[in-house]
Amino acid sequence: MSAPKTAPKKVVLAYSGGLDTSIILKWLEIEYGCEVITFTADLGQGEELEPARAKAELLGVKPENIYIEDLREEFVRDFVFPMFRANAQYEGLYLLGTSIARPLISKRLVEIAASTGADAVAHGATGKGNDQVRFELAAYALNPEIKVIAPWREWDLQSRTKLIEFAELHQIPIAKDKRGEAPFSVDANLLHTSSEGKVLEDPAIDAPDYVYQRTVHPEDAPNTPEFIEITFEKGDATAIDGVEMSPATILTKLNELGGKHGCGRLDLVEGRFVGMKSRGIYETPGGTLLLEAHRGIESITMDRGAMHLKDELMPKYAELIYNGFWFSPEREMLQAAIDLSQEHVTGTVRLKLYKGVARTVGRWSDHSLYSESHVTFEEDAGAYDQKDAAGFIQLQALRLKLIAMRDRRVKSLK
Amino acid sequence: MSAPKTAPKKVVLAYSGGLDTSIILKWLEIEYGCEVITFTADLGQGEELEPARAKAELLGVKPENIYIEDLREEFVRDFVFPMFRANAQYEGLYLLGTSIARPLISKRLVEIAASTGADAVAHGATGKGNDQVRFELAAYALNPEIKVIAPWREWDLQSRTKLIEFAELHQIPIAKDKRGEAPFSVDANLLHTSSEGKVLEDPAIDAPDYVYQRTVHPEDAPNTPEFIEITFEKGDATAIDGVEMSPATILTKLNELGGKHGCGRLDLVEGRFVGMKSRGIYETPGGTLLLEAHRGIESITMDRGAMHLKDELMPKYAELIYNGFWFSPEREMLQAAIDLSQEHVTGTVRLKLYKGVARTVGRWSDHSLYSESHVTFEEDAGAYDQKDAAGFIQLQALRLKLIAMRDRRVKSLK
Amino acid sequence: MSAPKTAPKKVVLAYSGGLDTSIILKWLEIEYGCEVITFTADLGQGEELEPARAKAELLGVKPENIYIEDLREEFVRDFVFPMFRANAQYEGLYLLGTSIARPLISKRLVEIAASTGADAVAHGATGKGNDQVRFELAAYALNPEIKVIAPWREWDLQSRTKLIEFAELHQIPIAKDKRGEAPFSVDANLLHTSSEGKVLEDPAIDAPDYVYQRTVHPEDAPNTPEFIEITFEKGDATAIDGVEMSPATILTKLNELGGKHGCGRLDLVEGRFVGMKSRGIYETPGGTLLLEAHRGIESITMDRGAMHLKDELMPKYAELIYNGFWFSPEREMLQAAIDLSQEHVTGTVRLKLYKGVARTVGRWSDHSLYSESHVTFEEDAGAYDQKDAAGFIQLQALRLKLIAMRDRRVKSLK
Amino acid sequence: MSAPKTAPKKVVLAYSGGLDTSIILKWLEIEYGCEVITFTADLGQGEELEPARAKAELLGVKPENIYIEDLREEFVRDFVFPMFRANAQYEGLYLLGTSIARPLISKRLVEIAASTGADAVAHGATGKGNDQVRFELAAYALNPEIKVIAPWREWDLQSRTKLIEFAELHQIPIAKDKRGEAPFSVDANLLHTSSEGKVLEDPAIDAPDYVYQRTVHPEDAPNTPEFIEITFEKGDATAIDGVEMSPATILTKLNELGGKHGCGRLDLVEGRFVGMKSRGIYETPGGTLLLEAHRGIESITMDRGAMHLKDELMPKYAELIYNGFWFSPEREMLQAAIDLSQEHVTGTVRLKLYKGVARTVGRWSDHSLYSESHVTFEEDAGAYDQKDAAGFIQLQALRLKLIAMRDRRVKSLK
Repeated sequence: MSAPKTAPKKVVLAYSGGLDTSIILKWLEIEYGCEVITFTADLGQGEELEPARAKAELLGVKPENIYIEDLREEFVRDFVFPMFRANAQYEGLYLLGTSIARPLISKRLVEIAASTGADAVAHGATGKGNDQVRFELAAYALNPEIKVIAPWREWDLQSRTKLIEFAELHQIPIAKDKRGEAPFSVDANLLHTSSEGKVLEDPAIDAPDYVYQRTVHPEDAPNTPEFIEITFEKGDATAIDGVEMSPATILTKLNELGGKHGCGRLDLVEGRFVGMKSRGIYETPGGTLLLEAHRGIESITMDRGAMHLKDELMPKYAELIYNGFWFSPEREMLQAAIDLSQEHVTGTVRLKLYKGVARTVGRWSDHSLYSESHVTFEEDAGAYDQKDAAGFIQLQALRLKLIAMRDRRVKSLK
Repeated sequence: MSAPKTAPKKVVLAYSGGLDTSIILKWLEIEYGCEVITFTADLGQGEELEPARAKAELLGVKPENIYIEDLREEFVRDFVFPMFRANAQYEGLYLLGTSIARPLISKRLVEIAASTGADAVAHGATGKGNDQVRFELAAYALNPEIKVIAPWREWDLQSRTKLIEFAELHQIPIAKDKRGEAPFSVDANLLHTSSEGKVLEDPAIDAPDYVYQRTVHPEDAPNTPEFIEITFEKGDATAIDGVEMSPATILTKLNELGGKHGCGRLDLVEGRFVGMKSRGIYETPGGTLLLEAHRGIESITMDRGAMHLKDELMPKYAELIYNGFWFSPEREMLQAAIDLSQEHVTGTVRLKLYKGVARTVGRWSDHSLYSESHVTFEEDAGAYDQKDAAGFIQLQALRLKLIAMRDRRVKSLK
Repeated sequence: MSAPKTAPKKVVLAYSGGLDTSIILKWLEIEYGCEVITFTADLGQGEELEPARAKAELLGVKPENIYIEDLREEFVRDFVFPMFRANAQYEGLYLLGTSIARPLISKRLVEIAASTGADAVAHGATGKGNDQVRFELAAYALNPEIKVIAPWREWDLQSRTKLIEFAELHQIPIAKDKRGEAPFSVDANLLHTSSEGKVLEDPAIDAPDYVYQRTVHPEDAPNTPEFIEITFEKGDATAIDGVEMSPATILTKLNELGGKHGCGRLDLVEGRFVGMKSRGIYETPGGTLLLEAHRGIESITMDRGAMHLKDELMPKYAELIYNGFWFSPEREMLQAAIDLSQEHVTGTVRLKLYKGVARTVGRWSDHSLYSESHVTFEEDAGAYDQKDAAGFIQLQALRLKLIAMRDRRVKSLK
Repeated sequence: MSAPKTAPKKVVLAYSGGLDTSIILKWLEIEYGCEVITFTADLGQGEELEPARAKAELLGVKPENIYIEDLREEFVRDFVFPMFRANAQYEGLYLLGTSIARPLISKRLVEIAASTGADAVAHGATGKGNDQVRFELAAYALNPEIKVIAPWREWDLQSRTKLIEFAELHQIPIAKDKRGEAPFSVDANLLHTSSEGKVLEDPAIDAPDYVYQRTVHPEDAPNTPEFIEITFEKGDATAIDGVEMSPATILTKLNELGGKHGCGRLDLVEGRFVGMKSRGIYETPGGTLLLEAHRGIESITMDRGAMHLKDELMPKYAELIYNGFWFSPEREMLQAAIDLSQEHVTGTVRLKLYKGVARTVGRWSDHSLYSESHVTFEEDAGAYDQKDAAGFIQLQALRLKLIAMRDRRVKSLK
């Protein structure tokens, strides 16, 4: 149950088809003399998957050892949507776009390992980041005997030069633009694109315009606002402007809308689980619209008691996902509470999109708790008896009065 | 210690100089035969105070019974700023602009009552809203024997017609535009303007443009972004673009900047403490910039452990202020924790203002915890040993592995 | 939806058969001219129910309007056991014996009202206590149109003398020992007996021995300890010493065992929801054993992450039950989280009972997470690699080191 | 800032004078060729310290390198008492007796290192437990550059045989009874004695009687109860039976009283921070009395709002101490909140001690919030208006009614 001490025999590698994971592929074969199975998933990162197959084949992976899967619907339905039910934001702002994708990848790695008899899985995350933790905690939670190999923590290919040398030595093709250092590092999926490192490392300096890849600059966004309506059922988005769509289709469409209007940019310094702070540029166009609309529909359909409890639980829930504890009993407990609260979160929200802002401007629902007859400034036909408020306040005040009397008495004793 | 049963003899009234509180003034004299002291405060609501003095005099209040005070600095320094140290947002979004002003008004009402020998205070809040609760809890917490009179809960002047009749009968001057119903109700102070009621009562329908009074429409905001720098010391803003200012001056300036760029509009349905949901339009231009910048400076100067605890405590803290428990031991306990966390929240944040968005794009501080040498993608000269992550993950995973092994074992028993 | 303004036509009364609720019965008929249905439930309070029937008949209630029910199994299965899954203790100590019974009584009152066409329910709780709140919140949550009548808040029979006069006037039989004042007030059900008021009102003075009714004085308990084994399945007790029993039977048996050994006495001053503090003597013999054993079985079957989350949620959960919010979305959300955590809380605990103490001295389970091979001081055959701890600690320490370095740097700047 | 890579030159060792730390002393000299300073503290563990000096001298430590200190007062005043203000219990039961001692030891190790120019500290905790984490996190938080050496994680002396061989080889005296394995492992200080390992490793089996060292068996405790009174000022115990004493003296006296009556025994399985569960036998006689009495005095002097907040914060506070984060900003934040709550926790509690139980039976205070005039069953002279409760309940119920009406409406739509 401890870290791998005996060499793995068969490894399922999370493989992007890029240079780094291709190097890992070779390194695993050389270092451990093991068979490598590649797993490449479409999580909506916006890249073709077939080149990954070709690349794997070129590197000698047997066709039956190449797994390529479109996980977009599962990703949105079983990971993104449950998380958005919680309005999860890490450190108040981050929509957890990278964090939420990792457990799904690990889940498939472990499942493929089980079905192919592999005894290990491998990933390309470094030893400084959160992703290694997320990959590995998920893998261990799903298979406590699995070995996890994190080459970046093990090998000595710590510089770009060494990596390129290794690639050349082993005939790994190197795209022209990969010879030099990338000016920053990118992770993308259907929920977000994150950029970090290199030119972004000084948090005092604005991110250069070219870092943003998925949202137009608000200055370049349309000069007239656009209004859209998002419909929810039990907390999950099901339609845009009345058109029902699958989870991944909805998120894709929201990304398009949000991206066009420059919504969802975030320049954040965050506290990593491994202990240091890092600076990231996040673009979450569709997710930003989804959060705003979800809060909007909750505002009329969810009781105050439930909502305040949810708000109190949210930071811990977000922290758990950020730290890699998706597959943990405490995340599941919180999810059970959150899911129950979504029973009536059904209805439609109208958003105004304009130059980087997505703002709720209307919401309606058959499940609404909003009662105009109670709140109205007009005659309310006895719906609410204002005199009740006097008693309410008296009893709310009682303990405060007792404190004040005590404090006065104590002062007089001195 | 219960609700007033004997008639008050001298009442300090929170008096705006408007029609409603003028009617209350007269009504108190008639109903209770008591002496009325008026208290009018400048909390930055943007109205002249001297007309309130003239009006009070006209209604027969003795000059020595007219109290007019500029509380703007105290308001920002002792109420707004402490609250912003917490990043307080009620139900995820509302910046508590009305809630935070009430305890200060009550505090002065009670103090004036003490110095003038008054046995009661009175306010013009209705029996349906939160403000009555906030006024009264604060008053009772500060003086458990004070009587609080809330005419709207007592009298029978429930319709506009009856109010106008009462005013005419008692020679209370009625401004022309006050004869008819206002299309919505407004509360304003240096932190925000809120609008609610009447034309805003259907939460499905967008707020009409004319409701917004303090922020330009984002569409009308400047076409080029503006960059500003806000400096903080121990969690409080102290300078804009390097120019040091007093608390109220800073907030005034931020309001100007935010308002000009259309920042800080919120269309919200919220759960009132008295039980129903209501819809409000809030404009908090300066506060919106302040929150964004405060989060920005915290992001580099505040440790993750402190920040996550603060994030978990925030919803309760915001709820306490919303519900009127500013003067309560639990709010003070949370404040003590929050204030301690601000010890090093010192530094400067660069914001980009554009068409309704205020976004952090840079931040720096002598108190920064951000360590480029730890986080860098480059060679880190041994600052961080990636191998440590392996042990870290193994021990984080141990309990998850034990669960997985248990689950497997239990399954095999069945 | 506000308080009853029109007189009720048919009322379901929570009727004990005692003097007070008999007076209420008559008073309702006289005051409102309404038909009264009596509802008497066996919740394990240890009194015969048939005398209540005879009394009701004597007072003129039609036989078909007399409801007498044994709710003991439902009480324990659907209320007590779910609550004990949470290890709920109000203000750290109180096992909520009275609080948990109220929602069930209200539920049946509302159901009987629905089936008999009654438009109101009535209870005998006073206006000073928590029970009125619990009865009424539950009733309103289950039927928002129901009227609730609380005679103690309405009538003028505030003194013992007046009550006796009313009873005599209306030929309500008065037991000899009820003519004078009871020396304290008692509430009892299968979970506990509470005593308060009168001779107990000075919290500085020990409760007289005669107050305790359900547990022997520890000094009189057996001089030799008794060991018992309680078996749990998914968090609920299912057997004692290997003998399976129904929920109510188990609690009855545990009461017997706990009572015999003087376990479960509590002398508490607590904060009431209505604002003042009160002093109560609680005897919860079986519940005390149950809590101890439940914690014992959780200690080996529940993961640390789940347990710590549960511990953090508990005070709020207990507060909700104490305050009468059993039927609320937030209690149900917490219950969903708690129930999920009990999936593997299956196994057996050995308790030692002796002179007022019930202490876990052994526990075992097929679902145990305790791994002797990991924890052992002996050779662990590689189950745990102590070197992992070095990396674990380094990364846990990283943020603390960064703080220390920052603090030192800041100090040097001054 | 990472783990020690260069050999330390001078090491301050937490030295008990026992065999294990004597072996460590020698091993450090041999392994690193470094100078060793011994630090032996009296934390109330009940052992003479002078033998440790003699032993250190015998092993060749220079007299000026031997530090022996009585830290009992500092321990209780600055660590135990602040923790008891929180009523801290880990996993509901454990009074954190070992956890709270570690940060103080580390603090002195780091201070001695600073004053002697040592570059490292060393401790005798193993790689499986929590103590290594507590020692090291505290050390790093206080001096981020310090090296920490944990021989048990580094050396290969993993068996008793090897340890004895090493000791013999290096002329380290071995007490006769230390040749064999101890039947369990013990840690003790003024707050508690903990025993774990070996004969205690099977949590199904009762701890043998001989494990308990500090409390008499309840069966052997006096047959008559003893009543004591503990006085508190601002949350800290200051006197027993009216006699004022220093913090350490009070705890010593309470230990005596609790031990004599068999109070404070706990047989617990707990979740370690490093991931596995362990079983411990804890004896905390004085602490058990202190917790009971502290809750007792809080019950009359602390407002419900403050108390419930404290109860919600407690599990996290206890977890932080258990996990070794005493010197962390989040523990300090919680402490600030807790300390503020203790302002009026002043008064006296009467405890009954008998056969293992310590139970509050009376409490009084000039700072009491208990108001007999409000709570009384008798005529209250208008202190409390029962009619207020009607309005209170109506507004508490409003949201529940709105939910019920919504649910009914939604059901009818289907």
